[in-house]
Amino acid sequence: MNYFSSNFKLGILGGGQLGKMLLTETRKFDIYTCVLDPSAEAPSKIACNEFTQGDLMDYETVVNFGKDVDVLTIEIENVNVNALETLEKQGVKVFPSSKTLKIIQNKAKQKLFYVDNNIPTANFTRFAYLSQIEDAIDNGGLHLPFVWKAAQFGYDGNGVKVVRSKADLTDLQDGECIAETLIPFKNELAVIVSRNVKGEVSTYPVVEMEFHPEANQVEYVICPARIGTKIAHKAQDIALEVSKAFNHVGLLAVEMFQTQDDQILVNEVAPRPHNSGHHTIESSFTSQFEQHLRSILDLPLGKTDNKVAAVMVNLVGAEGHSGDVIYENIEDIMAMDGVTPHIYGKRQTRPFRKMGHVTIVNEDLNEARQIAEDVKNLIKVIS
Amino acid sequence: MNYFSSNFKLGILGGGQLGKMLLTETRKFDIYTCVLDPSAEAPSKIACNEFTQGDLMDYETVVNFGKDVDVLTIEIENVNVNALETLEKQGVKVFPSSKTLKIIQNKAKQKLFYVDNNIPTANFTRFAYLSQIEDAIDNGGLHLPFVWKAAQFGYDGNGVKVVRSKADLTDLQDGECIAETLIPFKNELAVIVSRNVKGEVSTYPVVEMEFHPEANQVEYVICPARIGTKIAHKAQDIALEVSKAFNHVGLLAVEMFQTQDDQILVNEVAPRPHNSGHHTIESSFTSQFEQHLRSILDLPLGKTDNKVAAVMVNLVGAEGHSGDVIYENIEDIMAMDGVTPHIYGKRQTRPFRKMGHVTIVNEDLNEARQIAEDVKNLIKVIS
Repeated sequence: MNYFSSNFKLGILGGGQLGKMLLTETRKFDIYTCVLDPSAEAPSKIACNEFTQGDLMDYETVVNFGKDVDVLTIEIENVNVNALETLEKQGVKVFPSSKTLKIIQNKAKQKLFYVDNNIPTANFTRFAYLSQIEDAIDNGGLHLPFVWKAAQFGYDGNGVKVVRSKADLTDLQDGECIAETLIPFKNELAVIVSRNVKGEVSTYPVVEMEFHPEANQVEYVICPARIGTKIAHKAQDIALEVSKAFNHVGLLAVEMFQTQDDQILVNEVAPRPHNSGHHTIESSFTSQFEQHLRSILDLPLGKTDNKVAAVMVNLVGAEGHSGDVIYENIEDIMAMDGVTPHIYGKRQTRPFRKMGHVTIVNEDLNEARQIAEDVKNLIKVIS
Repeated sequence: MNYFSSNFKLGILGGGQLGKMLLTETRKFDIYTCVLDPSAEAPSKIACNEFTQGDLMDYETVVNFGKDVDVLTIEIENVNVNALETLEKQGVKVFPSSKTLKIIQNKAKQKLFYVDNNIPTANFTRFAYLSQIEDAIDNGGLHLPFVWKAAQFGYDGNGVKVVRSKADLTDLQDGECIAETLIPFKNELAVIVSRNVKGEVSTYPVVEMEFHPEANQVEYVICPARIGTKIAHKAQDIALEVSKAFNHVGLLAVEMFQTQDDQILVNEVAPRPHNSGHHTIESSFTSQFEQHLRSILDLPLGKTDNKVAAVMVNLVGAEGHSGDVIYENIEDIMAMDGVTPHIYGKRQTRPFRKMGHVTIVNEDLNEARQIAEDVKNLIKVIS
């Protein structure tokens, strides 16, 4: 198949910031693109060839959109999987596959998949209703503390909560969920694996999520992770195992815990370009978005080494600010060495809304980390 | 001025491949963009917010387009300069300025400008008509060989010819022109200077154009140039002088000859992102397109150091092929280390038509140069 300047069409389900960054890479290869997104204001709208407004969870909408494209991919997991199954039967190449998405969309299924495939993951119990959790605590079948996770439609920390007492259960949504052993981890790590159709595989360097000591929120994504070679290889090997188990095509971001005794436990995966790989735009020989395209179009994979070290900081809306967004001090951070802001183009800010990210690259990782701290202290996303 | 998520509008005259790559960078900063181009098929069309089809040389068209934007820039020099003057008077910020463009658009004026500003350049004589050249040769006022250059509208080697005998004059277009001393140069070099509105200035590393030994065509753009530090600093200093003389805002690509006795002579300039800076997308801390935006929006300039060494190869249509383009062996070159093709999206190839470029990056410049040769030998732009 000649993707370059042919009649080939790539479809993308979802037109948010990830889709926008993916579309940026399609320009380099002159790939014809079609995007489906529920919002008429989707960031991807101006960067694709054809934009369709429609519901990603609606069977008819997704089938109608997908039947005109050659390869279909996603930028968000919450899409109608039955529609993808239908399209696969009609000959559309869908990456990630409907089979993979079905497993990933449901966290209970995802965890069972790891168990079935001998992939190390934290112990867990599945519950059909929230009330079953209370019963299990009461009858001693479940011990506090644990991590509650909604089985479906969790996103960006939504649908995940550390439960330390029964009172913590009160505000949680009802429905299928899991209770997972709380892991006192040393590091949270992530590895992005790419695999093309013919089975060529590569991994990006391990990244480390550095947490704020008090707020317990990821502050910095650091590449390469400040860990030993042995544990890095272990993390990459396990990520490769996960990709192989899914028979995955495209990018697979594998989030993991490094425990106190240097075990690696898989937390969860995302079958698409991922926040933990944004730094690759500036730091890597091949950005994750280019690599995703190479994978799903069955092109040779690009080199995944770092050119330079990188630290990524998410730009989220400041607390107490809702309304027309202002990026305070953005010019000051742009004056610093190797600092590139990425603004997603959302007009309105809200507390903790993801509004963009900033990448800091440097030959020296410690230098990059220091500049990242300066960036974090300076820039404010306010209204 | 807050460019990020405000009502700010950036206008670009010309919607070709340079405009397309500039627009890619505007996505990162969420800049609202308007493009004017004569072709309904312009590559920029799908990457901007508003597209207007119209003649860049038509006064009314350019004024009507420009009056709605805050900052206006170009991706091609051949635009109606009187319209830019009018827009400047109306308060639109035009970079490069109409004054600079007037000088650059006419090669005789450009050469006189260098002389007036003590910038070293090859000796030349201006002629109003081609017949004056013949007369000058006959009466001994002009010696063969020399380089003939049309004063206006030359592009991509068009409008430039080495004249070794009177017979070489026959096919040349009539009209204003210059005859320039033929310089037996050691190297052809280029330096891109960026300058923002408040006068902050930076230069990119010197690049070297390596010529094919027989065909006398630029084969590789190499960064950094394989020259001594002293001559590199000299080239950068002269490029800075040129930028200062123009009081230039935005990018200024300065093409230069390094003579056999290590003099630096300015050949010509381009007041915009330039072919000699395409490699910066992959190799530099700041791509030339991002730097142009930072300059004209009066943002702090980015770091211009290389992360890694780079070689750039232009993809031009092969001889004997006209029609629907095929990029033969493109998958083979994509399998090589650090190789990124950029396809401009022109449907039809013609002999020597610029269809794209390929960047090869590597920690080691010699390695990059070797891979570039492999790339050049493999890929064919055919029909």
